[in-house]
Amino acid sequence: MDRLSAMKLYDVTRAPNPRRVRIFMAEKGISCPLVPVDLQALEHKSESFSALNPGQRVPALELDDGTAIGESIAICRYFEEVQPAPPLFGTGAVGRATVEMWQRRIEFELLMPVAAVFRHAHPAMAAMEVPQVPAWSEANRGKVQDFLVALDAQLAGRTFVCGDAFSVADITGLVAVDFMRLPKLPVPEALHDLRRWHAAVSARPSAAA
Amino acid sequence: MDRLSAMKLYDVTRAPNPRRVRIFMAEKGISCPLVPVDLQALEHKSESFSALNPGQRVPALELDDGTAIGESIAICRYFEEVQPAPPLFGTGAVGRATVEMWQRRIEFELLMPVAAVFRHAHPAMAAMEVPQVPAWSEANRGKVQDFLVALDAQLAGRTFVCGDAFSVADITGLVAVDFMRLPKLPVPEALHDLRRWHAAVSARPSAAA
Repeated sequence: MDRLSAMKLYDVTRAPNPRRVRIFMAEKGISCPLVPVDLQALEHKSESFSALNPGQRVPALELDDGTAIGESIAICRYFEEVQPAPPLFGTGAVGRATVEMWQRRIEFELLMPVAAVFRHAHPAMAAMEVPQVPAWSEANRGKVQDFLVALDAQLAGRTFVCGDAFSVADITGLVAVDFMRLPKLPVPEALHDLRRWHAAVSARPSAAA
Repeated sequence: MDRLSAMKLYDVTRAPNPRRVRIFMAEKGISCPLVPVDLQALEHKSESFSALNPGQRVPALELDDGTAIGESIAICRYFEEVQPAPPLFGTGAVGRATVEMWQRRIEFELLMPVAAVFRHAHPAMAAMEVPQVPAWSEANRGKVQDFLVALDAQLAGRTFVCGDAFSVADITGLVAVDFMRLPKLPVPEALHDLRRWHAAVSARPSAAA
């Protein structure tokens, strides 16, 4: 695919959002050059990167004609459109709506709260999260624990978040649970289905992307 | 369409998220019975509603077979799948990715910050937003103003957020800007393109939904 081989993904190795896209690409068998962006040096706020992505966020995908797509899930959606197999956004109307529902729930009720716990408390984030609100970091600890219980319940009797097929909802979930290590948030031992699922999705080759 | 006529939308008249779905349905020419949910009475946390939607959020769509779909954008996606015309999630791979990107930007950088300003400061929200963090309300005021400037820039030379075609990104934008009235956030006079666009999308019949 010439179209795909001529594109570039602006990337940060250790950040959760770029990892979502790299795992998605690995599951699709898509690869492209990765262009590292140095967040600590605030390179994402530079003039050249801002011209490409006025949102000043990573990841961003630059297509062969210079078109830039920002937002992890929008980038994943582009790949789903140009290479439908294997389907990672569900199949059929109900299936696609269900994957979208769970991708969003995990993003809003786990990934974003984990990010809030970390970004609003860690000194290394002070230049990136302005203003830091320590009370907001604290408030999100409980939200994370509440949602882990809900996710464990959803995973009871299901191989993956939305059933038998691995989807982008599993990718957001894996990245969110792994991101919990940074602010040292625990995954309770009692959540057996969550832990079984996490071990399974972590063992897929794509998890290393 | 029998399938569509047998469904029900659990709704809250004055809340922003259910309005997104009602506008989307109006643009598609889809209608179905609306079931009011009383948030002040915490009806969304009742046993019967929790059984339908464990996320305890409104809106939720119940299909004829009892399947429930939560999350506004997942419900909209379901309607897009079962009735593609007019397309409100974009057309073509780049078009769909672009609508997804802008829908998400407006949701994360405008609708959510406006909601945070309101929910973390207003006494009427104390039972629904636990814990309220007044400093988080304050921190989001600046985020709202910053994003309005970015959205105004995107709208320069464009009829709608993503170009010539009205999309779900415009719906999220309209609902977010109207929601700013509750916490009394201003739309600066100088943002001429934003104000021109807001007047145009507000004049569509769907805006009354």
